[in-house]
Amino acid sequence: MAAVATEKTFDIPKKYKAIVYDKPGTISTKIEELETPEPGPGDVLVRLDTGKPYLGRVPFPTQVGQVGGHEGVGIVYKLGPGSENGRIKVGDRVGIKWIAYACGACAPCLEGRDGVCFNQKISGYYYPGTFQQFALAPANYVTPIPDALSSEDAAPMLCAGVTTYSALRKSDAKSGQWVVIAGAGGGLGHLAVQIAARGMALRVVGIDHGSKEELVKSCGAEVFIDITKFDDKTIAEEVKKATGGLGASAVIVCTASNKAYAQALDFLRFGGTLVCVGMPEGDFEPIAKSYPAMMVAMEHNIKGSAVGNQREALEVLDMAARGLVKTRLRIEKMEKLTEVFQEMSAGKMQGRVVLDLQ
Amino acid sequence: MAAVATEKTFDIPKKYKAIVYDKPGTISTKIEELETPEPGPGDVLVRLDTGKPYLGRVPFPTQVGQVGGHEGVGIVYKLGPGSENGRIKVGDRVGIKWIAYACGACAPCLEGRDGVCFNQKISGYYYPGTFQQFALAPANYVTPIPDALSSEDAAPMLCAGVTTYSALRKSDAKSGQWVVIAGAGGGLGHLAVQIAARGMALRVVGIDHGSKEELVKSCGAEVFIDITKFDDKTIAEEVKKATGGLGASAVIVCTASNKAYAQALDFLRFGGTLVCVGMPEGDFEPIAKSYPAMMVAMEHNIKGSAVGNQREALEVLDMAARGLVKTRLRIEKMEKLTEVFQEMSAGKMQGRVVLDLQ
Amino acid sequence: MAAVATEKTFDIPKKYKAIVYDKPGTISTKIEELETPEPGPGDVLVRLDTGKPYLGRVPFPTQVGQVGGHEGVGIVYKLGPGSENGRIKVGDRVGIKWIAYACGACAPCLEGRDGVCFNQKISGYYYPGTFQQFALAPANYVTPIPDALSSEDAAPMLCAGVTTYSALRKSDAKSGQWVVIAGAGGGLGHLAVQIAARGMALRVVGIDHGSKEELVKSCGAEVFIDITKFDDKTIAEEVKKATGGLGASAVIVCTASNKAYAQALDFLRFGGTLVCVGMPEGDFEPIAKSYPAMMVAMEHNIKGSAVGNQREALEVLDMAARGLVKTRLRIEKMEKLTEVFQEMSAGKMQGRVVLDLQ
Amino acid sequence: MAAVATEKTFDIPKKYKAIVYDKPGTISTKIEELETPEPGPGDVLVRLDTGKPYLGRVPFPTQVGQVGGHEGVGIVYKLGPGSENGRIKVGDRVGIKWIAYACGACAPCLEGRDGVCFNQKISGYYYPGTFQQFALAPANYVTPIPDALSSEDAAPMLCAGVTTYSALRKSDAKSGQWVVIAGAGGGLGHLAVQIAARGMALRVVGIDHGSKEELVKSCGAEVFIDITKFDDKTIAEEVKKATGGLGASAVIVCTASNKAYAQALDFLRFGGTLVCVGMPEGDFEPIAKSYPAMMVAMEHNIKGSAVGNQREALEVLDMAARGLVKTRLRIEKMEKLTEVFQEMSAGKMQGRVVLDLQ
Repeated sequence: MAAVATEKTFDIPKKYKAIVYDKPGTISTKIEELETPEPGPGDVLVRLDTGKPYLGRVPFPTQVGQVGGHEGVGIVYKLGPGSENGRIKVGDRVGIKWIAYACGACAPCLEGRDGVCFNQKISGYYYPGTFQQFALAPANYVTPIPDALSSEDAAPMLCAGVTTYSALRKSDAKSGQWVVIAGAGGGLGHLAVQIAARGMALRVVGIDHGSKEELVKSCGAEVFIDITKFDDKTIAEEVKKATGGLGASAVIVCTASNKAYAQALDFLRFGGTLVCVGMPEGDFEPIAKSYPAMMVAMEHNIKGSAVGNQREALEVLDMAARGLVKTRLRIEKMEKLTEVFQEMSAGKMQGRVVLDLQ
Repeated sequence: MAAVATEKTFDIPKKYKAIVYDKPGTISTKIEELETPEPGPGDVLVRLDTGKPYLGRVPFPTQVGQVGGHEGVGIVYKLGPGSENGRIKVGDRVGIKWIAYACGACAPCLEGRDGVCFNQKISGYYYPGTFQQFALAPANYVTPIPDALSSEDAAPMLCAGVTTYSALRKSDAKSGQWVVIAGAGGGLGHLAVQIAARGMALRVVGIDHGSKEELVKSCGAEVFIDITKFDDKTIAEEVKKATGGLGASAVIVCTASNKAYAQALDFLRFGGTLVCVGMPEGDFEPIAKSYPAMMVAMEHNIKGSAVGNQREALEVLDMAARGLVKTRLRIEKMEKLTEVFQEMSAGKMQGRVVLDLQ
Repeated sequence: MAAVATEKTFDIPKKYKAIVYDKPGTISTKIEELETPEPGPGDVLVRLDTGKPYLGRVPFPTQVGQVGGHEGVGIVYKLGPGSENGRIKVGDRVGIKWIAYACGACAPCLEGRDGVCFNQKISGYYYPGTFQQFALAPANYVTPIPDALSSEDAAPMLCAGVTTYSALRKSDAKSGQWVVIAGAGGGLGHLAVQIAARGMALRVVGIDHGSKEELVKSCGAEVFIDITKFDDKTIAEEVKKATGGLGASAVIVCTASNKAYAQALDFLRFGGTLVCVGMPEGDFEPIAKSYPAMMVAMEHNIKGSAVGNQREALEVLDMAARGLVKTRLRIEKMEKLTEVFQEMSAGKMQGRVVLDLQ
Repeated sequence: MAAVATEKTFDIPKKYKAIVYDKPGTISTKIEELETPEPGPGDVLVRLDTGKPYLGRVPFPTQVGQVGGHEGVGIVYKLGPGSENGRIKVGDRVGIKWIAYACGACAPCLEGRDGVCFNQKISGYYYPGTFQQFALAPANYVTPIPDALSSEDAAPMLCAGVTTYSALRKSDAKSGQWVVIAGAGGGLGHLAVQIAARGMALRVVGIDHGSKEELVKSCGAEVFIDITKFDDKTIAEEVKKATGGLGASAVIVCTASNKAYAQALDFLRFGGTLVCVGMPEGDFEPIAKSYPAMMVAMEHNIKGSAVGNQREALEVLDMAARGLVKTRLRIEKMEKLTEVFQEMSAGKMQGRVVLDLQ
């Protein structure tokens, strides 16, 4: 609109550094030099400055030489043809989510269910991810990052944040009601507690191992229950006691544990909702107490929630920008990725790691 | 409103006939003469003219001498003290539902979940039921019957009708979307098909044994699937084919069969909802395919639905009065109740039976 | 259930003090001695210890000798016949709301719209109110008061609190979104700000005269706009600036001012909702900018919200008990009521007054 | 993906015929020959075979030489670069809606409010419309047409159909409830009646001039009210009588008449919703009875509804394909457009006209 609009331009190197999986099916990675691609129609080229490590254990194999990673944040360096949509300009800071691309036109997209888009591209699987200095991404689907939020604090919102936020919305719990976060001290759970307690005015019972008590309470949980001190029956009683006798309006299971799902329905009051987020691995097991007769008698609900949509991503980023949600994280150099993965595999990770892609 | 409003009065006999369970835990019944009770505070005395038989197999024992039955319709003969609420007058025709009394003040009642009222009284269990010529009922909770509807057509709406209608509402399926009715030819199912197809403009796939095809289609199902011709995998494919490839928006399981629950989740499209209505007996079994990972990937939902509330009862009665929903039934004399129960136990019942309590 | 349940009993005096309107159509009151009534079927007798003054300006005349007032809190001294519903016992502390009685069975009640109950009784109009030491009230509709909340802090929740809370819920504003409270420093408004900001995690812009700035901000508003410093056009710009450029998701008009309604639609973003709470007196004027073409172009909504229902009353009392909402009030003796009314009429009242009925 | 996929190809002429406005601000048009454009990134080239005339009276001026029209249907002849999204292929039949382009990424789009998209392009205004043989359209936003539906029957669904359908959805009226369609015999109204009655199982009162009675009833209205026989007060009484005494759950105002808006709120039962669709021209007038006090007392709602979104377009097309909704129309040659416009201006049009663009 201005008379002398001088659009930003950036020098784009011919080559850049990327981390690729070199032994498919393993967590082994190495750094390679790749040629910087040209953005095609509808795409933008993003100079990533941060990418959050993600341990690639979703049960589908990745190709040889694939660039892994999602939850990346960087600067738009160039627009492809047809990408001048007025929403994203060269120089904007944007994020790439776990769902790197949703088509916006299929049946799930038209219902706001980006996470089950029929044409979705998952960052770091069949679509090159964010463990690289330059990535292509759809102009229409990158996520603008609020100025008040650092890139490292923004990155975890793009998958873990939006996933737990969407699950909390789907739970239909209203402000003032109780929710239980199972796995409250984990990577997903500690965000869920903050979003629920500070962003949505829900009352939170956090459940996890005793070592996480301080973290969970500092995130805003009113009550912490140490899972190691109770059995299936007594932990349900403990939840009821904490929630005024009736049980919680919702339980968000953030761990990948069949045991957590086995307990969860007993935490609910009449009409309450269990939201599935964590996905147990190995052989599929049904949710242990999903007995039709009990679900009828209590009018209980179970909902599966995939990753959340673009609107929800913007909303949770806004909560983070307002200081309501903050991820526990440390920053590591690109070279350390395999070591970081080893630490994650060994279950020794405290909080999250964000890769410095400079 | 009339200039000389003469309120109706009725002669009330000292004694009346009731059918009581004479051997608790069995379906054996006999007719006894009981003394006509006085309505207490908040109650009305109803002269029942019809009561629908219900095979008492809900898993809690009934007392000796209990009057069974629910879904009764009759005329208000007398108001107890404090029952002059302006809503019900002497001479009105009213129904008594499966939930004979809901308190209206507990947490579930305040959310419109009468079926899980903390103080509910179930007709025919610990609260005398409708297999009798006179019954007491709460002035505030009896259900006015539309003039255009006969008593025998009204009776089944008071439990089977409102139960399936409430389940369809809870499914969140919108007019124009597909729902599958599992057990579409049964007592609940054939009402569900009519309510869905004619009362709510849903598109219906009915599933049942082949012998029910004509009934199910005459109730409004666009597609009938004969359960005996398919296995778990092929029946899901058949449902998908019938619903344009994606699957149905909702499945209402109206049978008390774990096998039906085992198939149902595979009938759903992304974001779809399985509503539990039928309650399998015996040892509780979880819903077979309620795998967290699959529920997340498809964003599937499971909901338990108890009997429906007073508002829903009025709505489904209105549909019946408009001729959209009609129960297949025959009328039997009081004396035949044990025989009717034997027929039900043997699985030979076609449609429903309404008892003539005259 | 206990073997030796000794139910509380209370000595009930034959006579007690009540404040009656002695000159209908005016605010003049006097104290009289009345005979303590017996609770009838479904009623309880409440010994009120506090009643909040309400300036009776709703446009229908009250009878001679009527006891005014609503928002009273006290102890249940006696149950009438049929009131033993298990919910309320002798000795319980309960509140009487603006809607003293809702029937629970009419069409609005069955939709949770107690405020438009066809059979409602308004406390202090045709139904004796709460400016008296003893009052009858329906066992099913009195509101239990949480132990953690003093009677004087509870009283204003029973009308002002539940009214604004219900309006905020009806606005459909979600946690994290902006709402404008018009009249943010008034009796209704300063509660709305607290409920929104602390109880529902909404972001609040408060609008009122400059003298209210400190109060409004201390209640949790992020932004205060001094209505005297702007005209209709510039105040809308100010709201847009405060809310990130688009306008607010909802406006709750808590003042009885046509001017406030004239401005309100311009404060909204696309799809936003104006909720009417304050009721301008005198000749009815339409909401000034409710132009169909503009409402279509912006997809704006307008909603009228009456007083809120029993469930909402319990929810807002819970917020108050948790310390999230607190009314600015002072306590006055019964004898001072006419003076209090004069102060209110003159517009000099700061906060609310609760009458001590001891 | 198939080994020998032979994609359809079409011969594309260098030039084609288009109807342009030749005297801006008037309805005068002429046919011109234009050069067939190349589809750019994200676009497709559509060979229109039908375009529905629309009288361009929306209050913003169109440029000289602009091609008018919207609601066009045709075949995709060519995909622009980056348009191979798997959803639309060469040879598909698609529609172009009133909103020819919605960005899919702005705040309204992320809430499914395409009609208030910040970057929308209105067909036939600043974006070339559908009164031409070839048009460019966004691959992501054209609307696939069901095989079972003819192009001329599909065309009116793309604006009039989706607009009224969206309004009916926004009204929150549930199947079995009463809605009033004001202007029930008009271009919008006669579709609204069919969608409501046959597609959504709503009960319809249609209001219009007596000459429209047969049309309105044949569309599915249970009750017709001749607007010329009643005044503001008696027509409201007539609506209440028709709807069982309480009034309708919703009123959809499909006419551009301030008088219709003046009556509409009186048609509503408690909690009911007036949806604004028709946009009165000339000086803006507020909705006459939008009195805050009355809206509070009745808990009435007013909603503005723009054109509906892509999902709703697909849903209403599905209803049309199932034979539930059919537009009264006749087909005219391109050359007749100015005459058609004159007929519309003179208020003589019966039903709709679809242009044959062959």
